[in-house]
Amino acid sequence: MFVLVNLKAYPCDPVAVAEAAQDVSEETGVRVAIAPQAAHLSAVADTGVETWAQHVSPVEHGSHTGSTLAEAAADAGATGTLINHSENRLKLADVDGSIDAADRADLETIVCANNPDQIGAAAALGPDSVAVEPPELIGTGTPVSKADPDIVTDAVEAAAAVDESVDVLCGAGISTGDDVVSAQDLGATGVLLASGVAKADDPRAALEDLVEPLA
Amino acid sequence: MFVLVNLKAYPCDPVAVAEAAQDVSEETGVRVAIAPQAAHLSAVADTGVETWAQHVSPVEHGSHTGSTLAEAAADAGATGTLINHSENRLKLADVDGSIDAADRADLETIVCANNPDQIGAAAALGPDSVAVEPPELIGTGTPVSKADPDIVTDAVEAAAAVDESVDVLCGAGISTGDDVVSAQDLGATGVLLASGVAKADDPRAALEDLVEPLA
Amino acid sequence: MFVLVNLKAYPCDPVAVAEAAQDVSEETGVRVAIAPQAAHLSAVADTGVETWAQHVSPVEHGSHTGSTLAEAAADAGATGTLINHSENRLKLADVDGSIDAADRADLETIVCANNPDQIGAAAALGPDSVAVEPPELIGTGTPVSKADPDIVTDAVEAAAAVDESVDVLCGAGISTGDDVVSAQDLGATGVLLASGVAKADDPRAALEDLVEPLA
Amino acid sequence: MFVLVNLKAYPCDPVAVAEAAQDVSEETGVRVAIAPQAAHLSAVADTGVETWAQHVSPVEHGSHTGSTLAEAAADAGATGTLINHSENRLKLADVDGSIDAADRADLETIVCANNPDQIGAAAALGPDSVAVEPPELIGTGTPVSKADPDIVTDAVEAAAAVDESVDVLCGAGISTGDDVVSAQDLGATGVLLASGVAKADDPRAALEDLVEPLA
Repeated sequence: MFVLVNLKAYPCDPVAVAEAAQDVSEETGVRVAIAPQAAHLSAVADTGVETWAQHVSPVEHGSHTGSTLAEAAADAGATGTLINHSENRLKLADVDGSIDAADRADLETIVCANNPDQIGAAAALGPDSVAVEPPELIGTGTPVSKADPDIVTDAVEAAAAVDESVDVLCGAGISTGDDVVSAQDLGATGVLLASGVAKADDPRAALEDLVEPLA
Repeated sequence: MFVLVNLKAYPCDPVAVAEAAQDVSEETGVRVAIAPQAAHLSAVADTGVETWAQHVSPVEHGSHTGSTLAEAAADAGATGTLINHSENRLKLADVDGSIDAADRADLETIVCANNPDQIGAAAALGPDSVAVEPPELIGTGTPVSKADPDIVTDAVEAAAAVDESVDVLCGAGISTGDDVVSAQDLGATGVLLASGVAKADDPRAALEDLVEPLA
Repeated sequence: MFVLVNLKAYPCDPVAVAEAAQDVSEETGVRVAIAPQAAHLSAVADTGVETWAQHVSPVEHGSHTGSTLAEAAADAGATGTLINHSENRLKLADVDGSIDAADRADLETIVCANNPDQIGAAAALGPDSVAVEPPELIGTGTPVSKADPDIVTDAVEAAAAVDESVDVLCGAGISTGDDVVSAQDLGATGVLLASGVAKADDPRAALEDLVEPLA
Repeated sequence: MFVLVNLKAYPCDPVAVAEAAQDVSEETGVRVAIAPQAAHLSAVADTGVETWAQHVSPVEHGSHTGSTLAEAAADAGATGTLINHSENRLKLADVDGSIDAADRADLETIVCANNPDQIGAAAALGPDSVAVEPPELIGTGTPVSKADPDIVTDAVEAAAAVDESVDVLCGAGISTGDDVVSAQDLGATGVLLASGVAKADDPRAALEDLVEPLA
């Protein structure tokens, strides 16, 4: 299982969370990555933790002021990127363009989507993985396994029907180690989470708790 | 073959083009429809021609000032709608939402996309049809059959791989009756065209020329 | 005072509301206009009521599929248009472009904005009027005169500081005739309202009640 | 005069350009700053040069994946930010929100706009400065002083009419030291430039040439 912690624009210390994640990953052997603000990519990457961008723009080198160039993210230490997160929805053509941009910069890609139909659409664009984020679960603390387990299995099926090589992550409703195990049981190969770690009083303890059943 | 004439925001007389299209359709038995500005839908529908919207918003009844409500388009006489035209690209989630909106209002749907990958993605969202619009052909007058015939056959294949029930139209590079026949030979079940008819000195003659090989 | 009723995408009968508005306007001498969906403009204009668009696109005639061309709105009977409504926020450059488009098509313009700073900015772009819409009042039924009267007087001042010829309307928090009088007392020359009329069981009675203190 | 070099998404070495800019600034006493990609902010700031963001999002700390948080840009070493660059146009309400976000993070602000009307609108939102970017000059190499000198004087007048404390920069048509002097003569207090330095074979020589008449 892959545990990707999205720091969003939270008022956390990205380096402290990164160091905790790196320690927990090394101690347990579980793959853990941190996705900070673009401006924090290099500071996070300097901790040695696997570092992801939260977004890359569907552009190549050129006149694109204010974009997030995939090559610049890679240059700062990112090795993967989220695309089309529910808080940063892209045009269909730009999801395609952002995957292409990430591929050019050797960034691994996870495309987020709302429901099984959109997961199928995202899978058709050739990302490495997709993540299903039921809008009603985002930020609620409700475990996906209790609220809506079918959405994960349906997403796994929808992705496989289009492209069997695309992995599916569970992108919402993950707060505890039990939730991670449930996601795995439903066919997910990883989880996205955010506030459960980034806003925890003790991010290290929160991460240890999350990966404990996997270790 | 289905011939859909998109009037865009051209300075043509939408009613005159609609009347010509209706006559040509009746005389030849070829299915011809007109997609005018939303504000012209009822005037076009009053001619009796098959009438399409150029876009519907991914919304239901409610507080959506400035939207194009699918129900309002249907109420004005539309029986179908384009979605995600290259001049009006939508977010992936909104392509999904606009298809749902159109379905609720009993509008037939054609989702436009740039390339075979995006055609596969569009097909995964469950529209009635998709239309492939190679950006380099839009508005050029270059026939798709000469410039890039593979894009149509690849689009047909990409759509079929995801959902065999989704038809594929050729959305650019159509100016003459020969181009329509070429599109049909490449596996398309219809064509989108715009300036070739809407900006013609004699739209009726242009339409007669287009459908002549099909009649 | 100018009373502009925005029908948004509500499930009302636009023609019935338009007829009621036209009757009430004729009986009382109060200027009342109706802003329906673009697809309903011609049906509303046919009642004889003053008809407004909810939005026009910042484009001229040309290749703009899915746009709302100002000329098409005017052609269908609109004589004015809202721009930058809180439910349809535009880029700064596009507010400018939409005002230009409306001017070309002889449509009167009201640019909506959130707060006095943005009202000043909108006034600098040269519309006929601006409307202040405090986000916290939209759709709440709370009268602006009670919740936040300063925002109207501040908006009047901000607009006047930039361009004294730009009128200011009160764009939220209007449900009753008393609210209309309050808005007038605070310096507004008109009001925008929506659900209070469009969703009323008896739109005619709601309009009569609104304009009664002005007649 | 303030010389702000926007690196956009150009394939240049941001640290090398930053070091050159810092040297030239120190040698000549001319204020020179560099605006790199967000992911490069900390590397550029580490050179000691004045560092600007190309954009900040209109958000506060919170759930805003893929945003450019003003606080994160400041944290990485930025002391100012462009807003509403022609390659990254924002909604009117978001220009306002981005200025607020920058103010919260103690970032100096330059809001870009197309023409004198929009410059007035931008000035009404209370930024530190505005920059006028005639679209027809961007990236052309044509000097603004030759192509359209009135646009700078008109912009200076439009900004002053709204808020005398807002400075005006010349945001396009600057390639040489003579152009910088022309901009100053027309009333600008600074210049934005991009390819002339970022894509120069020898960025240091290009910068020296630019600031030479000011030293």
